[in-house]
Amino acid sequence: MASGRVRVGIVGASGYTGGELLRLLATHPKVEVTVATSREYAGQPITNVHFHLKGFLGNLKFSQLSIDQLSERCDLVFTSTPSGVAKDFAPELLEVGVRVIDLSPDFRLKDPSQYERWYEFAHPSPDLLERAVYGLPELHREELRGARLVACPGCNATAALLSLIPAVEQKLIDLDHVVVDVKVGSSEAGMRPTLGTHHPERANVMRPYEATGHRHVAEVEQELSALSGKTVRVALVPHAVGAVRGALATSHVWLVDRSTDELAVWRAFARRYGHEPFVRIVRGGRYPDPKYVIGSNFADVGMAVEQRIGRAALFAAIDNLMKGAAGQAVQCMNLVFGFDEREGLYAPPLRPA
Amino acid sequence: MASGRVRVGIVGASGYTGGELLRLLATHPKVEVTVATSREYAGQPITNVHFHLKGFLGNLKFSQLSIDQLSERCDLVFTSTPSGVAKDFAPELLEVGVRVIDLSPDFRLKDPSQYERWYEFAHPSPDLLERAVYGLPELHREELRGARLVACPGCNATAALLSLIPAVEQKLIDLDHVVVDVKVGSSEAGMRPTLGTHHPERANVMRPYEATGHRHVAEVEQELSALSGKTVRVALVPHAVGAVRGALATSHVWLVDRSTDELAVWRAFARRYGHEPFVRIVRGGRYPDPKYVIGSNFADVGMAVEQRIGRAALFAAIDNLMKGAAGQAVQCMNLVFGFDEREGLYAPPLRPA
Amino acid sequence: MASGRVRVGIVGASGYTGGELLRLLATHPKVEVTVATSREYAGQPITNVHFHLKGFLGNLKFSQLSIDQLSERCDLVFTSTPSGVAKDFAPELLEVGVRVIDLSPDFRLKDPSQYERWYEFAHPSPDLLERAVYGLPELHREELRGARLVACPGCNATAALLSLIPAVEQKLIDLDHVVVDVKVGSSEAGMRPTLGTHHPERANVMRPYEATGHRHVAEVEQELSALSGKTVRVALVPHAVGAVRGALATSHVWLVDRSTDELAVWRAFARRYGHEPFVRIVRGGRYPDPKYVIGSNFADVGMAVEQRIGRAALFAAIDNLMKGAAGQAVQCMNLVFGFDEREGLYAPPLRPA
Amino acid sequence: MASGRVRVGIVGASGYTGGELLRLLATHPKVEVTVATSREYAGQPITNVHFHLKGFLGNLKFSQLSIDQLSERCDLVFTSTPSGVAKDFAPELLEVGVRVIDLSPDFRLKDPSQYERWYEFAHPSPDLLERAVYGLPELHREELRGARLVACPGCNATAALLSLIPAVEQKLIDLDHVVVDVKVGSSEAGMRPTLGTHHPERANVMRPYEATGHRHVAEVEQELSALSGKTVRVALVPHAVGAVRGALATSHVWLVDRSTDELAVWRAFARRYGHEPFVRIVRGGRYPDPKYVIGSNFADVGMAVEQRIGRAALFAAIDNLMKGAAGQAVQCMNLVFGFDEREGLYAPPLRPA
Repeated sequence: MASGRVRVGIVGASGYTGGELLRLLATHPKVEVTVATSREYAGQPITNVHFHLKGFLGNLKFSQLSIDQLSERCDLVFTSTPSGVAKDFAPELLEVGVRVIDLSPDFRLKDPSQYERWYEFAHPSPDLLERAVYGLPELHREELRGARLVACPGCNATAALLSLIPAVEQKLIDLDHVVVDVKVGSSEAGMRPTLGTHHPERANVMRPYEATGHRHVAEVEQELSALSGKTVRVALVPHAVGAVRGALATSHVWLVDRSTDELAVWRAFARRYGHEPFVRIVRGGRYPDPKYVIGSNFADVGMAVEQRIGRAALFAAIDNLMKGAAGQAVQCMNLVFGFDEREGLYAPPLRPA
Repeated sequence: MASGRVRVGIVGASGYTGGELLRLLATHPKVEVTVATSREYAGQPITNVHFHLKGFLGNLKFSQLSIDQLSERCDLVFTSTPSGVAKDFAPELLEVGVRVIDLSPDFRLKDPSQYERWYEFAHPSPDLLERAVYGLPELHREELRGARLVACPGCNATAALLSLIPAVEQKLIDLDHVVVDVKVGSSEAGMRPTLGTHHPERANVMRPYEATGHRHVAEVEQELSALSGKTVRVALVPHAVGAVRGALATSHVWLVDRSTDELAVWRAFARRYGHEPFVRIVRGGRYPDPKYVIGSNFADVGMAVEQRIGRAALFAAIDNLMKGAAGQAVQCMNLVFGFDEREGLYAPPLRPA
Repeated sequence: MASGRVRVGIVGASGYTGGELLRLLATHPKVEVTVATSREYAGQPITNVHFHLKGFLGNLKFSQLSIDQLSERCDLVFTSTPSGVAKDFAPELLEVGVRVIDLSPDFRLKDPSQYERWYEFAHPSPDLLERAVYGLPELHREELRGARLVACPGCNATAALLSLIPAVEQKLIDLDHVVVDVKVGSSEAGMRPTLGTHHPERANVMRPYEATGHRHVAEVEQELSALSGKTVRVALVPHAVGAVRGALATSHVWLVDRSTDELAVWRAFARRYGHEPFVRIVRGGRYPDPKYVIGSNFADVGMAVEQRIGRAALFAAIDNLMKGAAGQAVQCMNLVFGFDEREGLYAPPLRPA
Repeated sequence: MASGRVRVGIVGASGYTGGELLRLLATHPKVEVTVATSREYAGQPITNVHFHLKGFLGNLKFSQLSIDQLSERCDLVFTSTPSGVAKDFAPELLEVGVRVIDLSPDFRLKDPSQYERWYEFAHPSPDLLERAVYGLPELHREELRGARLVACPGCNATAALLSLIPAVEQKLIDLDHVVVDVKVGSSEAGMRPTLGTHHPERANVMRPYEATGHRHVAEVEQELSALSGKTVRVALVPHAVGAVRGALATSHVWLVDRSTDELAVWRAFARRYGHEPFVRIVRGGRYPDPKYVIGSNFADVGMAVEQRIGRAALFAAIDNLMKGAAGQAVQCMNLVFGFDEREGLYAPPLRPA
């Protein structure tokens, strides 16, 4: 480690998640960014794309992806690539001892057959799937310490899971009728312009999308099934709404026991998340709203119970680029290297924003 | 009727729904607005508040609510008042032969005891509750013709019902696990500024509210129960999202028969709504989005079926001030007076908006 | 004319302006849309692109541009094409007696050399430039009656001109220091997605663009020069701001006579615009805001005078797709055919929106 | 100083600027917040209002304003109060040796008579006006070191000044025709809901306001006059536009020498701002946009020169709550105490946001 700092690289550094990683790592006291790759912008200063970073990260330039360069210059590599890319080069990095935190879906699922079903490719490294740690610290903190390969959750999966973990773990809800209604901001679609993200079309929307086959369903079901010991299926529908950042999961669930009241559900949350550095429980007439975690790594969670009909709504609100992507990846990195988990991350959200 | 036109009054004409009624009636060929009341602005030209209407409606001024004046000058009165107000003066109007289309909740529920439960008042005219017609033409068209008292649905109720009617009526879904997740624009909160509607706080939100006791639940359950012949309970959670106009109901339901596919659900919709002038079925990879009905009286409906787990998502998208309020009220008025149901209403939405 | 209606075609009907023309013409009582061309979507129903128009215009389909077809089936053709396209085919239409209302810049400038300077092409039909009528009814109403070729103004030019005409015409201001600061919504950029219009990048902007060479400057200077009899130059800077529709021109001007007060400027506006059907003067503590003309063909104009330093701010607010494009084109068409100028256009704006 | 940290208080801590100060100071390594006053919320935890700060600042509660308490517990007090409040209690604090950084306008103007003209009060402490340092480090850095009373600029004034300083100082522009067109986000209006900030009315606006008497004009003219040695008057019009944060000044100016080109203006900027830690010059086809400084203390500045007519547009983009208020106040505090000027402030903006 040069100058006592961990040397990190970012593969796919020109997108929004790459930019957010660069933003966080630019002021992280234990880390030095040594490589940032981009096929499209190789050779150019990162500020050509991420002009908001002007004044930071010295004269860092984008380079082409080179395993040799990454091996030489990095202790750890974040991969922020489309699905199906990291699976092909991550193994080489691991072999030469470089740790990998993958922000793509390529190592999230344990069962290789699920990749054929949800992602339409045969996974080349089923052994790595077993070894990869699903990078949700609230579920896998101990495994993350010292991990060599981390598979960071999708943003919608992060929100869905954080809303459901306490109630599932503590067997409060009917696992056969779990509905997750997700709302997301436009940055979730990445940096590539399409008609769907064209401002006149994207502003003011309340637009359902991938209403039956959203890919994050696979990892949500995997983690909830592992947690409950039963096969859990979720009815998940994401909706694009009028915001740039943010993801809210509203999990609509039915209570096993009609006498369960809001206090009981709150206790389940408090027990589960009381010591979590980045989960805050919202109460007192308010519910979580991603608006109030913008720019931070916090997940705000909350609940409402309608005893009249024995159901609850469980909420988790995150900034999709932070706790839903780059922030969570840095949190994982802190655990991997044994740093304080909050290092470089523990700052308040922006408000109003 | 002066000049062969129906004379209409609007009580509570200074709010958003009042303004929208005025906008629609200003160009309605069979109607003349003779009275517009407002406690706060009585004596002032309506364009002091509704400055967008400059150039329309002559020199119409707001006046104080006067039953005598309304009786003399109106054949029909729209009441756009907060809950608990119309119940007290509507009976007098009806008595002197003035028809009433109430846009408040005061006559929507058939069972008087429900007013105590949901609205915290004892209803003074239970007999009128029986005679009032619930103003959703898609459910009560025949009763609306010639009706003397119409109770227009709430905006969220309109969206929820339109998403669910075909599947409930045709017994496709499990009535014990009906979830309705609603997203709404900021105009739904009316014209009174609060911290919750303050732009810095309201912009970019994904904010759940009234997660367990939203009042529109009462009328949704009433109409679905009547339709199905069973007691239906719905788990409804509204969310404020980043838009001015629009309401989307996403109804998450479980299919009675796992073999039901999307085509079967579409057929149920087509059968039910095929001849409806203001309901459009959206298919072909798109789902309904309120953005694309802005400014119009259309409800766009649609569906997605996930056979993997036997569930469906049923959508209805409306402009909350149009099909969710003023537009629907005018549609009812057209039916009441035997006009063409589309009169003054049948125009395309604004796009992009 | 089939069925007594004027038969109109739209060339370039798949963009936002094309869609807006279709929306307006769908309910225009004197017109029938017979042709709608689109290179990209020829053969498809117009509702594939303009799905908000579902239920209108019968089964109209996009077709390829064909002069023969347009000649046969149209009395008038609107051309809504990028700069440099209409100049090549409009002459053929005119020759066979089809009237043309061009919404592109191809016939706006009288001096052919200006096309080389601002648009980088040599104009093939300088004679037509002379005959074309600049389609701002507030300046050229009489010439528009019966016109065969109309060149509709650009949206920013429309706003700039409407803010300045009374003061220029009545010689109130210093013509050597005219500043026009324009703010526009995202729909002005058309329907083609780019990084600049990508929602995450376009939302919340206050972004200057084309700060020194905006092409609408040419037509603004042409019309103001003609109006004043002097060579007028304007310092115009447009800014993209956070809205879908709308354009506001704030013209910052210095008064020739320091004793000119706000009443005097108002009188100039009132004299000039008092009888204009689509210009409304805003006073009484408010200034024009495009928000309050959305969906309508109105231009709201207003003024503020600071006698302390002898300057004024003159405002014009329009919906860029209406008075800035399609609405104004229909207003011109009404004049061309001798219809009531308000026909199919005179409806209130949407509020709130 | 307890624990070696400077003890600071915030008077008026419950508004947006107060919240932003708390956010910044929560992670500032050299400072401890000991007092936060609020008339309305005294006795309540600050997180009741600033719920985004949950997890920070211990159990800090709002207290009533008490000079005794502030004297005892603070080395420095930030005053974030409406105009006319700080002038009455700041003198007492200064007398007992507490430093004051005032974010209100009460000490910005040097000439007491200007308070009567622009703020409608007679200033009680003309002597303090002389001693107060105008808190724009780019103009008054040396005076700020060790200062006892700092008067932080208004947000629009900060943007206006930063756009104009290099050109005024280097005598490039005609000082008799300076136009400043400002665009601002909704957070500039503070936390108090009004009809003008009600989301349905405030979303999508392009709304001029205070078009002739904006109070920040006074300080802009004062500073530019001091800088140029001549009486400078500016024609400033602010516009509310569709964003929560951000302020852009577009200064439209006429060049003294027609041969001045963009490079010459850029050189003036580079000379003036080259060593400024929080001013970044934007070039290369882009202009400054507040969107890209959101959440940071940066001012992005830029320029466009149209030699055709001898004019320039000079831009400055800031986050109104940061460089326009709390960030700049902390920058001033760093100078006052001799800390590194960047301490607790030097972090990249959020993008996209």
